[in-house]
Amino acid sequence: MAKKDQPVVLIAGSGIGGLAAALGLASKGVKTTVLEKAAKFGEIGAGFELGPNALGALDYLGVGDAARDVGVYVSRLVLMDAVSGREIFHVPVKSDRFVERFGNPWATMHRNDLHNVMLTAARQSYLIELHTGCEVTGYDQSGAQVTAKTAAGDEFTGAALVAADGMWSNVRRQMIGDELNALGHTAYRALIPSDHIPAGLDWLRDTTTLWAGPKCHVITYPLSGTRLINLVLVSTDKRYAPPGPVAGAPISNEEVYARFDHTHPRVKGIFTLAPEFKLWAIGDRDPAPKWVDGRVALLGDAAHPMMQYVAQGACQALEDAVCLAHAFETWSGDIDRAFSEYEKRRTVRTARVQILSRAVGEHIYHPCGPHADVRDAILSRMSIEEFYDRMIWLWGGNGINSQAA
Amino acid sequence: MAKKDQPVVLIAGSGIGGLAAALGLASKGVKTTVLEKAAKFGEIGAGFELGPNALGALDYLGVGDAARDVGVYVSRLVLMDAVSGREIFHVPVKSDRFVERFGNPWATMHRNDLHNVMLTAARQSYLIELHTGCEVTGYDQSGAQVTAKTAAGDEFTGAALVAADGMWSNVRRQMIGDELNALGHTAYRALIPSDHIPAGLDWLRDTTTLWAGPKCHVITYPLSGTRLINLVLVSTDKRYAPPGPVAGAPISNEEVYARFDHTHPRVKGIFTLAPEFKLWAIGDRDPAPKWVDGRVALLGDAAHPMMQYVAQGACQALEDAVCLAHAFETWSGDIDRAFSEYEKRRTVRTARVQILSRAVGEHIYHPCGPHADVRDAILSRMSIEEFYDRMIWLWGGNGINSQAA
Repeated sequence: MAKKDQPVVLIAGSGIGGLAAALGLASKGVKTTVLEKAAKFGEIGAGFELGPNALGALDYLGVGDAARDVGVYVSRLVLMDAVSGREIFHVPVKSDRFVERFGNPWATMHRNDLHNVMLTAARQSYLIELHTGCEVTGYDQSGAQVTAKTAAGDEFTGAALVAADGMWSNVRRQMIGDELNALGHTAYRALIPSDHIPAGLDWLRDTTTLWAGPKCHVITYPLSGTRLINLVLVSTDKRYAPPGPVAGAPISNEEVYARFDHTHPRVKGIFTLAPEFKLWAIGDRDPAPKWVDGRVALLGDAAHPMMQYVAQGACQALEDAVCLAHAFETWSGDIDRAFSEYEKRRTVRTARVQILSRAVGEHIYHPCGPHADVRDAILSRMSIEEFYDRMIWLWGGNGINSQAA
Repeated sequence: MAKKDQPVVLIAGSGIGGLAAALGLASKGVKTTVLEKAAKFGEIGAGFELGPNALGALDYLGVGDAARDVGVYVSRLVLMDAVSGREIFHVPVKSDRFVERFGNPWATMHRNDLHNVMLTAARQSYLIELHTGCEVTGYDQSGAQVTAKTAAGDEFTGAALVAADGMWSNVRRQMIGDELNALGHTAYRALIPSDHIPAGLDWLRDTTTLWAGPKCHVITYPLSGTRLINLVLVSTDKRYAPPGPVAGAPISNEEVYARFDHTHPRVKGIFTLAPEFKLWAIGDRDPAPKWVDGRVALLGDAAHPMMQYVAQGACQALEDAVCLAHAFETWSGDIDRAFSEYEKRRTVRTARVQILSRAVGEHIYHPCGPHADVRDAILSRMSIEEFYDRMIWLWGGNGINSQAA
């Protein structure tokens, strides 16, 4: 366990990825100092889905049981045609067979619920020091020492820096300097209180349902003990893309309705239940060949910002944290080798997830005409077991035992 | 067989697709008039590869044995890294197991050789009338009669028109009016006489070898009894894309060498064997939902112009012809139903091939950095049998028994 004068690892960001890194390193006896830019701890956004690999990773990080308590476990993932209103495909995701293949069921969660679980665990660890109001704006390093500089002019020094500072990572900007890809995709998010749901739509509480349409999709899943239905509408129509980065901007219901007016009445019957919407511009970055610069490593969205179309953003951040902790254990005392191992094991796998996320958007969620017919023909022939076979590389691990790609 | 006053089907174009349509319809006793725009019959371009589905289709069309006589049968398809010079993956394509799975071996042919086989067969059929110097520029139709209008001002009237007039189809322009996608990909084609090949490169005679590199690939395969090696270099670097359509324009060897200067010395050792190069701009079109307008149907590149990256352009044209002939047999005397069946069976399948061709270029032939690492990781895990499993939908039929997608 922790030794006197033991080196400290700095962590930029206290989102899911940053806390996961802190918990993982703490489980190996490594001290961390977590630097959060916001004035208080918390998560932005409402719900997310966690593939079975995420629950495996949360187990490794020591918070699996507490996380399971805040999850909702839907029976099926359902793919519907947003124009015809017909089902295209579905897969069971809490069946015995699913759990046998992937080790865990599919879960949906409120981001705040999972974040609270992780924050509570972090606060209980004497190895984790948590600071708010510390935006890491850059770093200096020299040999075995890294200094993280904050917007307020403070400096924190440690043996390494793990940058879990998200999609707009300052550390990545310094390390790699690449641009976010503005893809022209926009998301309209809302929460529907379950008591607003008419009787015929009870299945909203028990499925993740995705309505795929030309240049759009609509997805729903339950949150918070099914008291809420998370609703995300996505448009890839570039006419609607805001010119710059937008996260959580208000938008009128009428404007949202107009942008999804080409969907089936069944779809409209769902999204018109939402009290209000907020708008996000969706972006990603190209896979980066390197995430490590000396004693500085990227993690989570800072390392592999991806579109949400395979619901793996948080899952891959959790796997990163598991892999990093495992590498610290394996190469105890040798941070350089641990970082090198972490980078080697994670870059190819997460690049594949980034590429897959785009491809799923292009070929499954948003095609139209003959392209959509191709999707339907392929899925109509695919058995549940074949679908599971195709997902085993992605869902069948926890970050240590995961396939490289 | 042919009856007096039997209706004639007009065919625009006497390339592989047009002759295949004529031979297929003749085998069902249907008279055709083939209208070729060029002053004499022949094929443009040098070699092509024929997947096993093509030989199955040629059998159906009655020219399988003659076509086999002009084929070369390579042992393996080999994927190499154009930068490192190392092998990424290979598959046997004339093994017993390959033939057991797909019914035929992989073949490579000189276009003229296959065209001659088909032209000879067409000339021997009293049901096929062949005209040169007749460029079909458009059509009129009324009920059960179609008039094809030619550039010279002639008119040909028949019961139907099958437009096999290629990538720049005039008939498609009238029927659909879509634009060719200028993708910024350029191809540099050459023929290497085999007696120029040094001893260490003997494998050029017995493989299709593709060198995949960042924004480029280089492919070789033998032709004409291995007396020639067909060489195609492709660049996706948009700086090299000509502003308009280009087919067979001269380009200096030095310019080609400069564009592929980032490849491994092993690759350079091959392409510098070519006496001279010609330049093509590569394009495709988006899959079309409809190919039939009354008594007019598209076929081959006119129907589904695709990039050559899965070597299926000619193969799908042959499948089209088989499917069309089969539909004429099934719905004897009912051209409308035959066309409808043809369209229904072919649009989704060929849309998938068009989409696959792009995806293979993007994810297998031209990726770089982590994207290429993902490709390598996936292929390093893939068994030969798994590869065959993935190709069975594409290679495992002849146009009648092929999967819709």
